[in-house]
Amino acid sequence: MKAALLHRIKDIRLEEIEKPAFAPDEVLVRIKSVGVCGSDVTYFVQGHIGNQIVTAPHILGHECSGEIVETGSEVRGIERGARVAIEPGIPCGRCPSCRKGYYNICPEGRFLGTPPVPGAYREYISYPTDFIFPLPSGIGYDEGAMIEPLAVAVHAVDLGNVQNGDSVAILGAGSIGLLTLQCAISAGAAFSLTTDLIPERLRLAKKYGADVVINAGKEKVIPRIKEKTEGQGVDIVFDAAGEAETFQQSIHIVRPGGTVVLIGICREDMVSLDFQTARRKELVIKNVRRFRHTYKRAISLVAKGKIEVKSLITHRFDLPRLPEAFELVEGRRDGVIKAVIEI
Amino acid sequence: MKAALLHRIKDIRLEEIEKPAFAPDEVLVRIKSVGVCGSDVTYFVQGHIGNQIVTAPHILGHECSGEIVETGSEVRGIERGARVAIEPGIPCGRCPSCRKGYYNICPEGRFLGTPPVPGAYREYISYPTDFIFPLPSGIGYDEGAMIEPLAVAVHAVDLGNVQNGDSVAILGAGSIGLLTLQCAISAGAAFSLTTDLIPERLRLAKKYGADVVINAGKEKVIPRIKEKTEGQGVDIVFDAAGEAETFQQSIHIVRPGGTVVLIGICREDMVSLDFQTARRKELVIKNVRRFRHTYKRAISLVAKGKIEVKSLITHRFDLPRLPEAFELVEGRRDGVIKAVIEI
Amino acid sequence: MKAALLHRIKDIRLEEIEKPAFAPDEVLVRIKSVGVCGSDVTYFVQGHIGNQIVTAPHILGHECSGEIVETGSEVRGIERGARVAIEPGIPCGRCPSCRKGYYNICPEGRFLGTPPVPGAYREYISYPTDFIFPLPSGIGYDEGAMIEPLAVAVHAVDLGNVQNGDSVAILGAGSIGLLTLQCAISAGAAFSLTTDLIPERLRLAKKYGADVVINAGKEKVIPRIKEKTEGQGVDIVFDAAGEAETFQQSIHIVRPGGTVVLIGICREDMVSLDFQTARRKELVIKNVRRFRHTYKRAISLVAKGKIEVKSLITHRFDLPRLPEAFELVEGRRDGVIKAVIEI
Amino acid sequence: MKAALLHRIKDIRLEEIEKPAFAPDEVLVRIKSVGVCGSDVTYFVQGHIGNQIVTAPHILGHECSGEIVETGSEVRGIERGARVAIEPGIPCGRCPSCRKGYYNICPEGRFLGTPPVPGAYREYISYPTDFIFPLPSGIGYDEGAMIEPLAVAVHAVDLGNVQNGDSVAILGAGSIGLLTLQCAISAGAAFSLTTDLIPERLRLAKKYGADVVINAGKEKVIPRIKEKTEGQGVDIVFDAAGEAETFQQSIHIVRPGGTVVLIGICREDMVSLDFQTARRKELVIKNVRRFRHTYKRAISLVAKGKIEVKSLITHRFDLPRLPEAFELVEGRRDGVIKAVIEI
Repeated sequence: MKAALLHRIKDIRLEEIEKPAFAPDEVLVRIKSVGVCGSDVTYFVQGHIGNQIVTAPHILGHECSGEIVETGSEVRGIERGARVAIEPGIPCGRCPSCRKGYYNICPEGRFLGTPPVPGAYREYISYPTDFIFPLPSGIGYDEGAMIEPLAVAVHAVDLGNVQNGDSVAILGAGSIGLLTLQCAISAGAAFSLTTDLIPERLRLAKKYGADVVINAGKEKVIPRIKEKTEGQGVDIVFDAAGEAETFQQSIHIVRPGGTVVLIGICREDMVSLDFQTARRKELVIKNVRRFRHTYKRAISLVAKGKIEVKSLITHRFDLPRLPEAFELVEGRRDGVIKAVIEI
Repeated sequence: MKAALLHRIKDIRLEEIEKPAFAPDEVLVRIKSVGVCGSDVTYFVQGHIGNQIVTAPHILGHECSGEIVETGSEVRGIERGARVAIEPGIPCGRCPSCRKGYYNICPEGRFLGTPPVPGAYREYISYPTDFIFPLPSGIGYDEGAMIEPLAVAVHAVDLGNVQNGDSVAILGAGSIGLLTLQCAISAGAAFSLTTDLIPERLRLAKKYGADVVINAGKEKVIPRIKEKTEGQGVDIVFDAAGEAETFQQSIHIVRPGGTVVLIGICREDMVSLDFQTARRKELVIKNVRRFRHTYKRAISLVAKGKIEVKSLITHRFDLPRLPEAFELVEGRRDGVIKAVIEI
Repeated sequence: MKAALLHRIKDIRLEEIEKPAFAPDEVLVRIKSVGVCGSDVTYFVQGHIGNQIVTAPHILGHECSGEIVETGSEVRGIERGARVAIEPGIPCGRCPSCRKGYYNICPEGRFLGTPPVPGAYREYISYPTDFIFPLPSGIGYDEGAMIEPLAVAVHAVDLGNVQNGDSVAILGAGSIGLLTLQCAISAGAAFSLTTDLIPERLRLAKKYGADVVINAGKEKVIPRIKEKTEGQGVDIVFDAAGEAETFQQSIHIVRPGGTVVLIGICREDMVSLDFQTARRKELVIKNVRRFRHTYKRAISLVAKGKIEVKSLITHRFDLPRLPEAFELVEGRRDGVIKAVIEI
Repeated sequence: MKAALLHRIKDIRLEEIEKPAFAPDEVLVRIKSVGVCGSDVTYFVQGHIGNQIVTAPHILGHECSGEIVETGSEVRGIERGARVAIEPGIPCGRCPSCRKGYYNICPEGRFLGTPPVPGAYREYISYPTDFIFPLPSGIGYDEGAMIEPLAVAVHAVDLGNVQNGDSVAILGAGSIGLLTLQCAISAGAAFSLTTDLIPERLRLAKKYGADVVINAGKEKVIPRIKEKTEGQGVDIVFDAAGEAETFQQSIHIVRPGGTVVLIGICREDMVSLDFQTARRKELVIKNVRRFRHTYKRAISLVAKGKIEVKSLITHRFDLPRLPEAFELVEGRRDGVIKAVIEI
């Protein structure tokens, strides 16, 4: 089968590799669609994320969907031909976190596309059925690939504990920010506010229901949000940008006693926290690590029409053009929100 | 001013009484609209609810809105002419519950229309501004009166802790049930199911977004819901009917580890709980006492268009026809969901 | 090996049966001590609990400890000779409850001694290491058997969410009640109150730290508790008796907004709930189903000396005298709190 | 009456000022004992904390107890001669935070000793009874003054949600650290670990129940704690030191999914957060702002003997020697943990 292998920084080659074997409790999936994530691009351009380093030819990709083409002998309840989304992490299942259901923070977990675990930019993958989720008839493969970032957003909004009538701010209107915006509204937010630097993204935020959008390159974010919330700040802030500046803004624009949810991944290891403000407001700061138990719910939100993922897909490529897709996302060019590789 | 006084069971008389005085931190409100609540009707037909007994001529009514016509000398931030909803309970403010913000369970609270506190079926009321909430321009007085039952529903859904993608069942599709259905969907429910005995109400449930409606007079509720949830049951059940039967159903149709929220008010003092089933499923059962901190949020949900209250108002009467309105609601005749008295 | 088989009601026979085989991830344990639980006695005297019926010769017993005598080929981290407590339920591991860590409500779970799963009144048992917990050197086998009821009490107090300075009532001072009392105090309760009918048990409650004990056969429980709590009621009630009467008391003696935790197992399927009181106080009622994730913590509480289990063991028997032990516990004779079978 | 007035940095003068008047709902208290807090000392040596600046002669002090000598005409339920602890913050009572019971984050709150609100280093104070708490007979005035820092510790442990059998680390063993240690143990912690630089303080930590103490000046904190927790880290970390270094340690020594509670007050406005580690572990970081609803519970914990405050008082001074007390605490000399001014 064909696979896209990253050999060195910016050196991706389409190669023939062995089709994977599958265990009795696994299925073989023909991959159909893989979303390009910012983390893929980071590996592509710098060869590592923190201490996770590409040292051998490596397959990236983890936002994926496909069709089941073979089933292991012990597989029950799902059949050949099923269209599925693949939850890309396989936890150890036995550590204290796994046992309590917090499998997303399993220290031994294997995550698709994170070195050295091979990812999804290839034709076939074998996978345990515990992390395979059928797609209802109305949801296509591209949307199926979008379930992964949506699962992050659903989890982040769970952590933020948004309730009917709450006010929220989402800092950053990339694909995760726009999905978080939708999820916060879907969870009852009655006032939502989004910031970004790119006008096109703010237009999308408006379309997905933001009451106020702020161009952080042109307007002063903190006073503008204070003004829009009668000086109180919002109930919950989602930092989907992961910039030092948005983290600082989060502390200042949330109300006393509010919650700041950190979704966006900083490039730096360390960020500065305005401790005195956080202390006087007695803030709760929650970090987000991917998702747990949200795939099924994410699919049902799309199926029900509460969340719209299709229109976030701005570009489609085939597998040979993967480097081109990476370059596009890296440059944030051409109005890209989400690029999808159709395999 | 005119007021409707309940003298004895089914004996309401429109009489002239003194216009109320108001304290420096109070406003005088010209009442415009009062919703007829089931509890009003219970006082009308049986003279008491439990140990709360009408012993002297009494003014009922607590779902109300109006216009501010006078303001006390210390009132700030709200002015004459403002259109407002009135939160009908005034807690003591000093008991342990009040201090912790749980003012809805203040044992000393005074609630409009609950004997001996005079209610809202009259022309004027004086009220402390802490419990007065301005209505945005798009929300009329009748909708303003609907904020009260909506505040109950918002509170019940808070307690149920509905999250994105959850499944819910609402038993009973009267006004509280239909508002709870809307609030659960607004809070992220991706699958909702409603039962009632009256086809017209089930039609409304469908309109407000129920995925499945069940006529409990014609279908077996428990097996039907099990069937619709792959044998699992729903995440959260809201019993908005308050019947012995719906309470039993709640225990059986909720999933293991799920939550049952009891909103509807039983006529009996005691209800039977299927203990063994509740124990094996390790259920959490939550009681609902009116609302706390939900008026402002309820208004914003209506203003934002997330909740639709207008179409629940099926009948309008003027104050002299109050007994007629009570009879209509008592009989559940003529497709009545909510009757409103326009004063 | 020897095992005690229940053939019919009150007909237990000591018989020779096959020593169990063990899988590669299992250990073979020489059982040393098994506590007599009320549920064992119920099977002994009436042959069933609800719809769980003894239909074939059956081994009871689930509160057990022992010594590892063999280890499967894949077992790591625990060795022959280790002294261990055995967590008696093995969940399916794949249902929605299991995946979220709520394995105690797994509908497919197999629980030692619950028909048809053979229990612990025998010499050897094979068991998966996931549910095997080493005992520190200071904790003997009899105490090791007591970890099971203690795990229930720890879980119940988790659910009750006892915090520093809270007030609690424990209704019923059998072994579960006395352990719950200790756990509630260990979790910060600064005022605790226990009821029972048996003076000896109330003396023990005093010894374990109860501030007030009430003989429910001689005193009126509700007014006495009101009097002791300035009319407020306690923050959290643990009903460890499971009687219709204690359930009613729970509703009345808890403060507004408080929590009632139901631990004791009613003999009836249905119990009566004082709905109006529960509603006015907006109570939360939580059911307890065994335990989850509390074995390790229970052991550490005993090791640390925060909980004292040894003195609850009032009687010891060998396996041939198991029927005698059952009769003793059934009759609540001779000051029995906990009888242990030493095998 | 006499009062200690801070005129300029390190310039405190004992002066005669007017005895305060009291309102109908207030009492007049003869102050008996005031604890020296680190924040008092900061005002003494640098004249401000952040943007809270001493601009006019100012009375410091907020950890106080005394005797009621006069009662306002509307005061009920407490009488002249009562020995009381004074909760030193008076919130506005009407802002959104106050209404929900989160009065500790009221932006309009007045706090004793925080400029310009005069504090407790004086003979008499008038105070509203809502924040006056009677001391049981066994608790002296000095202990009564200690209720204030204890109330902080109780609140911090509430936020940390310590449960039976949890493991905790407390970084910093000053008075707040040692009280937090005791409160965490009182709330069920079965393994506790404390760090500090001062051997005397670590000895006290041992005495109050710490299982492990680490001298952070001599040992490497992070590897030592990892070693003591089988590489897992502890469930909850309380940073009671408020140093840049202890904040970093907190992130590294807490287990995945754990909680970090920030109690100690940094001198800097900004602190560095190791974002990537916090993210991978999906940590929750909670800030602490004084206390809410913990005074009564703190008193009951001392009365019950669960928390020992007396032995934390290492030094006693009379009011004229206040500057000497401040110098002592500033220098952390002479084994000082808590100095108390007896007035």
